[in-house]
This record gives sequence, C-alpha cells and structure tokens, in this order.
Amino acid sequence: MTPQTAGPAPRLSINRWTCRTTPLQDFLEATAAHGIEAVGLWRQDVEEVGLPALRRRVDDAGLRVTSLCRGGFLTTADETDRAAALEDNRRAIDEAVALGAPTLVMVVGGLTREDKDLVAARERVTENIATLAPYAEDAGITLSLEPMHPMFAADRAVLSTTHQALDIAEAVGSDAVGVVVDTYHVWWDPALASAITRAAETNRLLCYQVCDWNLPLAAEPLFSRGYMGDGFVDFPAITTLIRDAGYTGDIEVEIFNEDVWATPVEESLGIVKDRYLELVLPHA
Amino acid sequence: MTPQTAGPAPRLSINRWTCRTTPLQDFLEATAAHGIEAVGLWRQDVEEVGLPALRRRVDDAGLRVTSLCRGGFLTTADETDRAAALEDNRRAIDEAVALGAPTLVMVVGGLTREDKDLVAARERVTENIATLAPYAEDAGITLSLEPMHPMFAADRAVLSTTHQALDIAEAVGSDAVGVVVDTYHVWWDPALASAITRAAETNRLLCYQVCDWNLPLAAEPLFSRGYMGDGFVDFPAITTLIRDAGYTGDIEVEIFNEDVWATPVEESLGIVKDRYLELVLPHA
Repeated sequence: MTPQTAGPAPRLSINRWTCRTTPLQDFLEATAAHGIEAVGLWRQDVEEVGLPALRRRVDDAGLRVTSLCRGGFLTTADETDRAAALEDNRRAIDEAVALGAPTLVMVVGGLTREDKDLVAARERVTENIATLAPYAEDAGITLSLEPMHPMFAADRAVLSTTHQALDIAEAVGSDAVGVVVDTYHVWWDPALASAITRAAETNRLLCYQVCDWNLPLAAEPLFSRGYMGDGFVDFPAITTLIRDAGYTGDIEVEIFNEDVWATPVEESLGIVKDRYLELVLPHA
Repeated sequence: MTPQTAGPAPRLSINRWTCRTTPLQDFLEATAAHGIEAVGLWRQDVEEVGLPALRRRVDDAGLRVTSLCRGGFLTTADETDRAAALEDNRRAIDEAVALGAPTLVMVVGGLTREDKDLVAARERVTENIATLAPYAEDAGITLSLEPMHPMFAADRAVLSTTHQALDIAEAVGSDAVGVVVDTYHVWWDPALASAITRAAETNRLLCYQVCDWNLPLAAEPLFSRGYMGDGFVDFPAITTLIRDAGYTGDIEVEIFNEDVWATPVEESLGIVKDRYLELVLPHA
C-alpha cells in the first residue's frame, strides 16, 4: 500500500496513545500533515503542557478533539477513596469542556484481591455514574462508558459488555451517559449486533474506536492492540453494524503496541490512514 | 491449612491436566489416596495407554470418570476438514462411552487470519453440533459445550458465553447438548446468573469446573488457571448460583499452571483438596 499522506481521511481521529512516544507537538503536526482532522487526547497531555496550552496547540494545528481519556475507576468500597475518585472525575469533565471534547471515556475500574464481590463492584459503578451524570449534563459533556475486554475484568474494568454498559446507562437514566464501542474490547461479543442497535436507538452510541486484536497476546495484554488488518477483527462487519445503526460520528484509531511506538510517526500514521481507508471508511 | 490427605471430599473430581506432569498411574493412585472419588480424563490419556487399559486402571483405582476432554474444533469452512472433524468427534464420543464418562467437553474452535467471519464460524458450530447430536444421543453421552474466555475467541473457541452455548443447544434441540460452566472462562460474565438458571431449567447444566483467574496473565494465557483462592474468582458466589440452580453433580478442578505442574503431586492434590473444602464445597 502506498501512503496517501496528504489526502483526505473523513471522520478519522487519531488517539494520542497510538503515537505516545512522539512528542505532543510533533504528534499534532504530523496528524494534521496527514490530512487527518481530529485527535483523541489523554489527561496526561493536560498534565504535560497545561489545559490552555493544550487547547491552543490543538487549535493551531487545525484539529478537533473527539474524546478525552479517561475518567472512571469508580469501584472502590472506601468512602474517602470514592469521594476522591468522584472529584477527580469532575475535574476530568472540566478538562473535556476546556478542550472541546464532546465525551469523556470512562474506564470503570476493577476488583481487589481482598474484595472479589463482582456484583457489588458493578453496583457501585452504577451509583457513582449516577452521581456524576448531572455534573456532566450541566457541562454539556457525555460520559462514554467503555466495556473492556473480559480479560481486564479483574484489574481494570468490571464493565465487560456493551449491553451491560447500556443497562447502567438506562438505570442512571441520564442522556449524558452512553457507550464507546472499541473493537479490541468487544469484537468477540455474540450480542454485539443487538447491543449496537440498542445503543443507537437510545441515542447512547457515543464513540467508535478501532484497532485490531493481535495474537499472540503481548506480555502486557493492553499492548496487543494492532493496526487494522493485522489481527482477527472483522472491520467491515463491525463497521457496517455501526453504520446501519445510524452512527455518523468520528472514528478514533487507538493502538497500544510497542512495535507501533517504535515506528517513526510519519510511517505509523501513514499505515493507520491506509488501513482506515481500506478496511473501515468504505463500510462507515 | 493442614492437608486433609485421606479424608472425604464429596463430589470432587480432579482433571488429569491439573497433574499433567505426573505419570498417569501415579496420578490415579495419588488421587485415590487423597480420598478423591473421580477424575476428568483427556484423549491424550487414551492415546498413551489405549482405551481398555485406561478404563481398567481407572476402575482398579476405584475412581469414576466425570468427563472426557475434548471434542470440538468444528469451525472449519473446508468440507474435507469438516468431515474429518466430525469423524474425530464420533471417535471421541465412543471413547467417552468406553471410559464411562457421562459427557464429552467440546472446545468448538476458532478463526483463521484468512477467514475472520465470526458470525459464519458460529453458524458452522451450530450445524456441526446438530450433526453430532444424534450420535451422542444414541451413545448415551452428552456434549458439554464449553464457553471459553473471550481472549480465546480468535484461536480456540468462538463460543464465548454461557447464554450463547444455550442458544446453540436450543437451536439444535437435542437433550444430549448442554453446557459446562468453567469458572476461569465465565467468572466475568454479567449475565452469568441468568445463564446458570437458564441452563438448569432446561436440563443443560452438565458440568461444573473450577479454578481461579490468576494475574498477571501467563505468557500462555491458558496457563493462568490457578488454585482456588489465588486469584480473583468469587467461588462462594458462583458455587451458590450453581447450587441454587439445582446442580448436584461432580465438581471438577482443572488447573493449567506451570507452578502447579512443578509441584509434587501429593502436595498439589493436598492444596486442591484443601481449597475445595474451604471455598467450594460449603457452598455447593
């Protein structure tokens, strides 16, 4: 494939962590130079350069912000920790507003070896999302609950399926709460089609993130995310479900992968864009 | 904990692979010496000593056989391969009969990089299980469909949840087709409680296998199965669901773990038995 370096790539957004080893300014400029219109940012970027500077840099590069990663970590049973987590999430919502990001991605948190009560942890997530929802509504920001692959249920997110995310959103009953569909986390789900339809029908399909499921798993399983086409995800099929549900938003490429991070940013962005134009956009 | 070496351990069965590095005869004798009444066997054991000799050895040790692992691998789109797979599964059913095993555990198979159509692969599984069901019925053997953890959806089993297994069983419409609930594979499932109830109500809850979910994941994720209590699985909660559904069958401990395999069999069986008596049996 020949990189289409400067051609258009409608609706493509590059998540900052796809190029995490590239300095922020270089990442923003390289993204814009590839004809890509949008980026997903992380709170680490805010920490690094400060909120006003980050917003200015993104604006200067002519980019939109599609999401901010990440809020969440709301499973603690300790009241002091819970209050701190809620306060931190309110700050994250404020940051999303300041960056012009429409949604905050929520990784809800896992278990501890001392407290393996999965049902109770999930109930606390629902309660805490309900507590945060009015703040998000007032801010004009949505909370994108992220179902994570079940291999992360113990240590990162007790939220494992898209239907489960929608159950939480509906229990909370706020228009500000919805779901992000990330192919790495949900591609295997036998109920994915019905869940995507349900999300769209209830206006809760907030974000679509793509990357592949590479095997063998990396030593850190989070880092098995691959370029679209390198693994086992059927991008035409899942993207068609997303399109048929009526989603017209941006599509964020979020790859965590040591090999990608070791690749010069011009090259890795070229591959991302080519794969997006080949495997995703035609079905979107 | 003090090993209860020779005391009773009602309903406990040891899967052969929990002690795979122990010679077969030593495994059978050590199991019986621990007051354990049953074992789960593998087709590799049949290959090693032959069917009549395996049956005789198990009988001589005074043990029951709770399951045979494994049939399955039914996702191929190639007709020649499909015919071979079906024939191999019929042989596995014959072996289960000869060993007195009531059920054959079915690992349904994965995808290939050349054919990532997950929906089609799942349809082929249903078709092939339907083809095998009458043979199993005639043999008086059940087929225990095994939902495997979604991290194995690409390479081992496109069957990922207990509800999905029950959908297949009901589509096939045979009393010989049901599900094995293995804590390692399904502990994370937000729909586990309703699926266990559904399985029991339709007489399809055929086997209950236990081991823990250890972190960090082993380089070979299959080998992250741990002694009950070492990881994140809530055994009292899941075992209570199984009991409340009316399950009164054997409970098979199946651990794949390099550290367990490096432990002398008397010691590892003692740990398994202690953990079973502490975390599983009181809730069963």
